[in-house]
Amino acid sequence: MKLYSLPLSPFAARVRGALYAKGLAAEMLAPPESFGTSSSFRKVSPTGRIPVLVRDDGTTLVESGVIVEYLEDAFPEPSLRPKSAEALAQVRLITQVADAYVMNALMPLFALFDTKEKDTSAIEAGLARLDDGLGKLDALLAPKGYANGERLTTADVWLTPIRFSLDGFMAFAGRKEVLAKHPRFAAYRDVIEGDPALGRVWREMNDGLKAFMESRASAS
Amino acid sequence: MKLYSLPLSPFAARVRGALYAKGLAAEMLAPPESFGTSSSFRKVSPTGRIPVLVRDDGTTLVESGVIVEYLEDAFPEPSLRPKSAEALAQVRLITQVADAYVMNALMPLFALFDTKEKDTSAIEAGLARLDDGLGKLDALLAPKGYANGERLTTADVWLTPIRFSLDGFMAFAGRKEVLAKHPRFAAYRDVIEGDPALGRVWREMNDGLKAFMESRASAS
Repeated sequence: MKLYSLPLSPFAARVRGALYAKGLAAEMLAPPESFGTSSSFRKVSPTGRIPVLVRDDGTTLVESGVIVEYLEDAFPEPSLRPKSAEALAQVRLITQVADAYVMNALMPLFALFDTKEKDTSAIEAGLARLDDGLGKLDALLAPKGYANGERLTTADVWLTPIRFSLDGFMAFAGRKEVLAKHPRFAAYRDVIEGDPALGRVWREMNDGLKAFMESRASAS
Repeated sequence: MKLYSLPLSPFAARVRGALYAKGLAAEMLAPPESFGTSSSFRKVSPTGRIPVLVRDDGTTLVESGVIVEYLEDAFPEPSLRPKSAEALAQVRLITQVADAYVMNALMPLFALFDTKEKDTSAIEAGLARLDDGLGKLDALLAPKGYANGERLTTADVWLTPIRFSLDGFMAFAGRKEVLAKHPRFAAYRDVIEGDPALGRVWREMNDGLKAFMESRASAS
């Protein structure tokens, strides 16, 4: 298999996490420059986005959530899904809440802090929304260990890039207190660093962030 | 089982579609008024939203996508999932594209048309985004029959409320031409009406819309 991926993309990072945790080999490919508007890349990715999984028969698959579920269905062992329907629902709920209430609250905040004239009321509303999302997520996490407890699941593959992006936001915006009321997700960084697959994704994203910051500094 | 649901909610409609298609019995419960801000309803739904599935042991589950997957895992037969990993990925891709590119483009358009002073440039941009999303979706649908071909799958459960909402938008905004370039999703209304479970969801949503329009008319 091959995967069109960029180190810093949280969407590509989920798929890399699943591949690493399952021990699946995939060649990493960088998309072409300006791939989002490239008509030739649309032949590979109908949405114009990454990640794109290229199967061995040459067919492709897009959308990170679809790819991660596909890897579970096509390569069931080792499984990143809990066995019981109830536990699997909890894992899916964690990923959904992390996406809908944390990631969707976090992303606009980067833009709000990245301006000279800060819109303080929009920032406060955005931070309140993020705090609400983090509260929802924290309440779903296991008291310690992986997101769902003892074993790594697809929820961990989901949370790793979100936890990384949150660290990046706290540093970028000088808002270390964002995680103060959410101890489980705060401590979750240690879980990531203690796991070979998740730790690898974290380091790749960190390297990607450094390269991005350097290119931004040299361009300005 | 019980389900907190409202007839017009596209999110609750997905779960009803899955229940009907699988022949599962569930008592329908209306959420309390102003449930989104009700602290007592938060004990039932940690996100404050519907649908909420109440299992027979009293535990609850939120988020329509999580509930539909749970119903498949907990009550596998009759299955709404295709057997092969590749076909199942296609079904998941249809649901994801329908959500991310059609539903997310459609919902803001209702608000844009529901004002006296129309923001024509925002409307044109929104319609272009919707057209792009419908193009992506149409390209994924089977040439005829259900979303993925001969059998009803979770993709159909997803598409039914979206197709209904699109019909509602076209009538509300006087924009019948929205589906002109997307023949498969245009014809998909007949598929819904020809299926007992999907047709029932459509009629329930239609009854809910009539009730909503009457309450709106009597309030103004």
